[in-house]
Order: sequence, then structure tokens, then C-alpha cells
Amino acid sequence: MRAATVEIVEVSARDGLQNEKLIFSTAQKVALIDRMVLAGVRRIEVASFVRADRVPQMADAEAVIAALNLPDDVITIGLVMNKRGLLRALETKVKQIGAVCVASDSFAQRNQGQTSAESVESAADVVRFAKAEGRSAQVTIGAAFGCPFEGLVDPDHVVRMAKQLAQAGPAEIALADTIGVAVPEQVFNLVARVRQEIGATPVRVHLHNTRNTGIANAWAAVQAGAATLDASVGGIGGCPFAPNATGNIGTEDLLYLLHRSDVSTGVDLDRTIETARWLSQEMQRAVPAQLSRVDPFPSREHAA
Amino acid sequence: MRAATVEIVEVSARDGLQNEKLIFSTAQKVALIDRMVLAGVRRIEVASFVRADRVPQMADAEAVIAALNLPDDVITIGLVMNKRGLLRALETKVKQIGAVCVASDSFAQRNQGQTSAESVESAADVVRFAKAEGRSAQVTIGAAFGCPFEGLVDPDHVVRMAKQLAQAGPAEIALADTIGVAVPEQVFNLVARVRQEIGATPVRVHLHNTRNTGIANAWAAVQAGAATLDASVGGIGGCPFAPNATGNIGTEDLLYLLHRSDVSTGVDLDRTIETARWLSQEMQRAVPAQLSRVDPFPSREHAA
Repeated sequence: MRAATVEIVEVSARDGLQNEKLIFSTAQKVALIDRMVLAGVRRIEVASFVRADRVPQMADAEAVIAALNLPDDVITIGLVMNKRGLLRALETKVKQIGAVCVASDSFAQRNQGQTSAESVESAADVVRFAKAEGRSAQVTIGAAFGCPFEGLVDPDHVVRMAKQLAQAGPAEIALADTIGVAVPEQVFNLVARVRQEIGATPVRVHLHNTRNTGIANAWAAVQAGAATLDASVGGIGGCPFAPNATGNIGTEDLLYLLHRSDVSTGVDLDRTIETARWLSQEMQRAVPAQLSRVDPFPSREHAA
Repeated sequence: MRAATVEIVEVSARDGLQNEKLIFSTAQKVALIDRMVLAGVRRIEVASFVRADRVPQMADAEAVIAALNLPDDVITIGLVMNKRGLLRALETKVKQIGAVCVASDSFAQRNQGQTSAESVESAADVVRFAKAEGRSAQVTIGAAFGCPFEGLVDPDHVVRMAKQLAQAGPAEIALADTIGVAVPEQVFNLVARVRQEIGATPVRVHLHNTRNTGIANAWAAVQAGAATLDASVGGIGGCPFAPNATGNIGTEDLLYLLHRSDVSTGVDLDRTIETARWLSQEMQRAVPAQLSRVDPFPSREHAA
């Protein structure tokens, strides 16, 4: 049976912006994070500690984190690709380290200059090191459902990765459909299998809406018992391998799905829609997520 | 268990265009229909017999049907709202009559100037009359999941409508999320209940992607045993009650979902994508469906 509550991790300030051409100022990023925390989000990706020449949008990672002044119960996440990124992150007040490994060799090579197996070792090291330094740490398996270079990814391989990663004691393990190719049955089956194999470690799912299956996959993940879903207000972000594609699943669209399905999130839909509209103005373009363009349903009049 | 095959009814030439401002010529409509039949579609809405002053896009219904020259195994559908529309349709060579009734009084009044109960009577009459004249006939229950004026629609009411309609012997009964508000569990439950109540009569489901739940709802419908799904190439159509919203679920996006999930449709994805690109040019705007903007997955290289 599906859960009565699902946690949302807001990723617009990291994965969302990272794939957008328009560079946001530090102040704009802080405003985006503040708005989503005010909407009710309690875990939020705030930066990625990567090379500025590779990902210019993330050049001010330290400055963004230094500028944040969030309630104590909000967990900020900083993504790191390797030990060098981790050392940078540990110099900041970011509360949770997000390690990353990749399920296919070709993508792992392109993303981190490693094989898939090496990326697992490296991510497990990051988790162990971060925990030894007293930080919370979790890990994401990228391209878990498909690779732009190799096609479908063997679920057995992903399950083995998850088991190996679980031994490092991460706070959670995430399955990422980095390029937005998954379909619901695939998501349901992999989430269910990984949950079975890694026992008590919660599973988070990260989805892109590149082929319009994102919301269907989110629902499949919830049905399979995923504890947490990543989402990006406005559905911003695009896909690094599909220049015209839409981005992460939109937080407001996900909230509509979940709240109408009696799954609570603690995040306010109206405030999220308001942030999507603000973001659309800041980005000077329409956002791909849809709830900010339509009337509420059921409306207050309907409910009365 | 879900079916191994799902039938697609292409509705772009009717529901798709009907909600678009740009008026297509008869020749453009015929070209659209021809392209989707060449892609493999075997049942297709070609026109609606409504008043030209109310729906200008459908003013050439008779001319479109007269101009068609399709293979014998293709079933053309003409939608009718009342006896007057039916009499017009029967003067043409259209193969199947689509009757319509509405699940809420306010929407039925706006759509057809009737109560919901009166619209059921009237649709059942249309089905009986069409069959007596030797035409195939089916019926759609509009606003089956929600009404823009009344909010949520009582599923018990929809089930009662379906049972009453079934007595007229329609070829199928469709449940339409006319304003795009449904969520997957709601679709699954209503499709399953209606199927149970109407016995052998197949269930078709008509979905809009207004709130980004369209593809998730399509998958829920398939899981609940729907035999047929409506879709519109390019996802064109908008929503009459949400001026900025996207339209019907896109045929190409639905094909991606189904084919990747090992559900066959007989419709070719590549040809459908090609038609979406052609349609985008004819409409002079980007279409909302997404498969025409991204690379195939898995690609032919992956499969090799």
C-alpha cells in the first residue's frame, strides 16, 4: 500500500537552474530557496560543488549557502561529484551531502571521468567521509532507468549498486531518471526491488518529464513505496541531452497529483504556484509545469 | 492484469482542432486524418455535427467527410450532440456515431441545454436511432471526473449513467475527463467500476493533460482494463475552460508510454512524430506533446 505522506525535495535551485541558460544571481537563488521553504519544503538542494568552468550556474555555491538564513528544521543539500567537491561542501554550513554515482559506464565517464563501478566506490567513500565529519549524507544513482549512450540500463546492475552503496550507511538512496526516459512499470519494479534489497534505507526518486512520463512515474514510485520525490518548481531545468526538452517534474504539478490523491506533503500548492509565476517572470519565459496556468480544482467555491 | 493491446482513437481533427483558434481548411483536415491513418490509426474522429456559429472550426464537417478516401478497415467517427446533429451525420458516409452526455447538470446545461439526466436520455436515443439506421454508435460521458462549475463529480452518478446508457446497446461507453482534472487513482477506480457494471461493453477513456496528469491517468486506465484511449497528435486542443492550458493527451507521448510498457497499439511512433512536426508547422506554433522534440529512446543504435 502507498504511503499517506510523501516528502518533497525541492531541486529547482540546483538541478533546475543548472540546466538553464540564464544565470541567476546569488540573491535570486536565495529568494527562490526562501520562497519554497515558506511554501513548506523542509529539504532542499541549494547548490552543487562542481567546477565553475563546467557548470557556470553553480559558481556561487559557497555564496548561496552563506547567504541562507533558514529555519532550523530545514535540511539543505549540497551535491558533490567527488572528494574535492566534498571538501568544499564541508567548509560550508550545508547540512546534507548528496553523493552521486552513475549506472552506465559511458555516462559515468562523461559525468565524472569514471566507470560505473568506480563511481559507486567513490560515492560510497564520499558518504563515509561526510558521515565521519558529522554530516548527513545520501547518494543518488544517476541514469538508473536509461542512458543516452547505452540505452536501457539493466535493473540487476542498479540493484547491485544500491546494495553496495547501502553498506556505506547513507541516509537514503535515490534512483534518478536523469534523461527522462522511464515508464511507470519500470519505475514501480525498480523502486520495489531496491526497497526490498536495501531494507530500512529510504528510497528517493528523481524524475524528469522529458518524454511526458514524469508525473506517471512519480505516481508509480509512490505506489512502490518511495519515501521522497525530487521536484522543481515550474518544472524548470531541461535535460542536458535534449536541448528542447522540459525539465524536472514540476513541484506544483506533483502537489496537484499527490494532494488530489490524498497523499500529504506539507507543501502548500498555492504558494508553490505563486513561486512558479514569480520564477517565470525572473526567467523571462513560460515555465513548463502547468498548474500555474489553470484554475484551482476543486476551487474554494466547489469545496464550500 | 492490463491488456497486451490498447486501441488508439485519434481525435486531433475534432477535439484537437475544435479548441484551437487557427481555422484549418478542409484540405488541411483531410491531410491530418490521412497522415494519422497512414501512421496506423484505425478509428478516428473526423468531425462534429454542431452549429457552425458555436464551433466555427467544425463548419465543414460534411465537406471533410466527403473528401476522405480511407481504407475500408478505418472507422470514421462523427460526434453529435442531439437528434439534429445525428440527422446531419446520417446524410454522410461517416461510419460511427459518437453520442455525448454530461455528468453534471451545470456543464450539461452549458454544453447541450439539458440536465445531466436529460442528456443521458438524449444520448441513449441517438444511439438507438443510429443503430436502427444501420450505423455503429457509441457514447461518451463528459465531465465524468470533474466539472468546472460544480467541482468533483460523484462516481456513483457516473456509474448509474453508464448502466442506463448500456441498455441502448452502444458499441462502447467512454469516460471523458473533459477539463483535465482527474488523478490516476480516480481514473483506475471509475474505469474498474464501470467495467464491472456494464459487462461486455468496452470502455474508452478520453483524457486532457490540463494539469499534467494525462499520461498518468492513461496508464491508470490501461491498468483498469480500458480497451481504448483517445489521443490527439501533438497534444493540441487546449481546454475550453482554461485558455492557456495544453490539450488532449498527445498521441506520440501516449505511444511512447505504451510501447515502452510492452502494450502494442498498431500505430507507428516515428510517423506520428513526423505528423506532430508537420502539424506544428501548419499551426505555426510549438505543440505541447513532447516526443517530437527529443531523441528516440532506445535509439536504433542502442537496440543494435
